[in-house]
Amino acid sequence: MKLFEDRISSAVARVRIALALKAVEVESVPTSILGAEPRSRSADYLAVNPQGLVPALLTDDGVLITQSLAIVEYLDEWFPEPALLPADPAERALARSVALSIASDIHPLLPPRVAKRLGTIPGADSMTAMEWNRHWIQEGLTAIEALLSRQPERLFAVGNAPSVADIVLFPQAINAERAGISLERWPRIAAVISSLRTIPAFAANAPVPRSADHRGPRR
Amino acid sequence: MKLFEDRISSAVARVRIALALKAVEVESVPTSILGAEPRSRSADYLAVNPQGLVPALLTDDGVLITQSLAIVEYLDEWFPEPALLPADPAERALARSVALSIASDIHPLLPPRVAKRLGTIPGADSMTAMEWNRHWIQEGLTAIEALLSRQPERLFAVGNAPSVADIVLFPQAINAERAGISLERWPRIAAVISSLRTIPAFAANAPVPRSADHRGPRR
Repeated sequence: MKLFEDRISSAVARVRIALALKAVEVESVPTSILGAEPRSRSADYLAVNPQGLVPALLTDDGVLITQSLAIVEYLDEWFPEPALLPADPAERALARSVALSIASDIHPLLPPRVAKRLGTIPGADSMTAMEWNRHWIQEGLTAIEALLSRQPERLFAVGNAPSVADIVLFPQAINAERAGISLERWPRIAAVISSLRTIPAFAANAPVPRSADHRGPRR
Repeated sequence: MKLFEDRISSAVARVRIALALKAVEVESVPTSILGAEPRSRSADYLAVNPQGLVPALLTDDGVLITQSLAIVEYLDEWFPEPALLPADPAERALARSVALSIASDIHPLLPPRVAKRLGTIPGADSMTAMEWNRHWIQEGLTAIEALLSRQPERLFAVGNAPSVADIVLFPQAINAERAGISLERWPRIAAVISSLRTIPAFAANAPVPRSADHRGPRR
């Protein structure tokens, strides 16, 4: 299998963590999403994935799977151990809810293509995207903290083992810290992230920091 | 089961279509997301769903499930007929990819809370959110058209029966048309939507149009 990826992407990090937990090897195809002419928007890559986004997984049978959560569900079906979804239906639903609360309500508002678009609004300046990002991260993680706080306290976000909820939460929390947002105000999230940092599949697959000259909306 | 919903929400429409396809009845709890003090942000509702978003499903066992795609997966597990995910693994992955391409890459950029936030950027005017929405809808549907065009032509987005891909595509396409975007430039999507319009579970559960006085970012 080939994984088209840019290791700065937290969506890529989700897939990398899932692969590491399951000890599945893939061929990496570096596909940069940054810069004026990112490789992710090249004609070559658009012929593979017309969305021009990463991650994308190309199976040995030539099946292209886009969208990190679709890839994680696919991996979980083909490589069932360890399971990335809890066996209990209510916990399974909660794990998907937490994952989607980040993947659909926080992260889509933060990628470079959104920052770029924000920069086209008259009056937007270099702070606009930074403040925008902080707003959605803080609002989103506050809601997730409230959801998690209703559950019995555990090492992981949901259930007794790392699940898709942790796989999505971990890169988002790391990126929040890099944006200067301390996790301390969300004690449940902070405790889960502390647990996850001790697991090599997570620790080794945090999103790679963007270099300083790539920071901010004015690339 | 109780469904907290505002029928203008296309995320709510996804759950309504899934329920209708499976002929599952729920108690509706109207939870408006519009206005200066939407019911979705009331203390009462935040006690139910700390995200303050709709849809949310409360099961008879008191389990709260948020996020439309987590609800659809849960419904598909508990009420297996008709299946909302294709049986073939590659088609199942594609159905989830298409659903997530909308649910994570188009729709999160369009809801009222995002339009409201855009309105706080100095220089933003009443056109900003409209142009913003059109940009993401057009970019997103163009990519989905390219993905679908690689598949054998069928009545539905993926496979031989309505799937989660159709459930998410239908409300987004209806909203695109309401934003003045003709589907004609995307023939595969247009054909799928034509098929879906003939199915009562879809036709009866399109998102309800916002009333004129609620339109635009300046509410």
